[in-house]
Amino acid sequence: MPEVADLPLDDAALLVIDVQVGMDDPARPPRNNLDAEEKIAALLRAFRGAGLACIHVRQDDLDPASPFAPGQPGHPIKDLVAPLAGEVLVTKHVNSAFIGTGLGAMLREQELGTLYVTGLAANYCVESTARSAGNLGFDTYLVEDATAAWDHTDLHGNHIPAETVHAVSMATLHQDFATIVSSKALLSAIERRKQVAGSQEH
Amino acid sequence: MPEVADLPLDDAALLVIDVQVGMDDPARPPRNNLDAEEKIAALLRAFRGAGLACIHVRQDDLDPASPFAPGQPGHPIKDLVAPLAGEVLVTKHVNSAFIGTGLGAMLREQELGTLYVTGLAANYCVESTARSAGNLGFDTYLVEDATAAWDHTDLHGNHIPAETVHAVSMATLHQDFATIVSSKALLSAIERRKQVAGSQEH
Repeated sequence: MPEVADLPLDDAALLVIDVQVGMDDPARPPRNNLDAEEKIAALLRAFRGAGLACIHVRQDDLDPASPFAPGQPGHPIKDLVAPLAGEVLVTKHVNSAFIGTGLGAMLREQELGTLYVTGLAANYCVESTARSAGNLGFDTYLVEDATAAWDHTDLHGNHIPAETVHAVSMATLHQDFATIVSSKALLSAIERRKQVAGSQEH
Repeated sequence: MPEVADLPLDDAALLVIDVQVGMDDPARPPRNNLDAEEKIAALLRAFRGAGLACIHVRQDDLDPASPFAPGQPGHPIKDLVAPLAGEVLVTKHVNSAFIGTGLGAMLREQELGTLYVTGLAANYCVESTARSAGNLGFDTYLVEDATAAWDHTDLHGNHIPAETVHAVSMATLHQDFATIVSSKALLSAIERRKQVAGSQEH
């Protein structure tokens, strides 16, 4: 993983993807990284404190029976990571936040070239968004402990633990699409930037 | 997996992604599905025999040191699955065959709404292309034995066998982005369509 000093922040945005109430549906299988939402909340505090952009993405499912369809109890963003007034909320209908949303054009217009991607689920909307971001030329980072995966059953009936799903997703994305970082490294980089800015004021 | 009768063919195209010589680079770790290229070759014969579209995708890497950069010995498409005169060849610089290529517009212009995705590597360009295709609204199928993955080491140093990488990729794509099918089911669907067409001639 890259050193803290390597994490660019000047044109950075934090992307928080699909952290919606429906992710806690008891019908879902077990997941890993149970504190991913807390990690995202800490990153939101740090980005807000540093005056850096926070962009929220929400799944507005077109299937009215989906827990993520507007009007369903699972649709709202969880309180812990809810957008503040004035922050951008991007609504989407498919997995990649770059398809059908205008997000790419908005980021270029605002000259936000560096993206720190977080959210749920790691191997679905987070991975699709990170793949799109990297392929579209954004300097893309994915915060591995600020995302989570769920247990799967593969097509031959074998059980795949959430940790394995998450590990394959991160290993595939790393270097080809995004740089995988920890929330600790990203928080340290923001802290270090604040100290540098503070020392320059004296 | 869906029944043979469920596989639509009337507006179908076979997509063959990045089956290039450089995939055999001895520096690469072990892979699964060693006969994926033979399976793709069989699908190409069947699609061609049925007068169905075959679309070839090639990575033209912009990094001149990449085995997949034009001019490198690893760049050409393998003979076994090489395009025939008159077949479409899409060249791309990133993982998704839908980014920077005009492929989506071309498919819509030719009214090809059903895509059967094959090629290498399962969790990189094949998965990115299938994710894009599904999210862009194409009826997307992925032929699981006509693609392959390679062993990985995860970000914590653990070994992930190619079979696991492949299984996670297929399990993630299935239903959310694409329907996973076998080459046998797809070949049977093409054969069945030929028989129906033949019987209608009598």
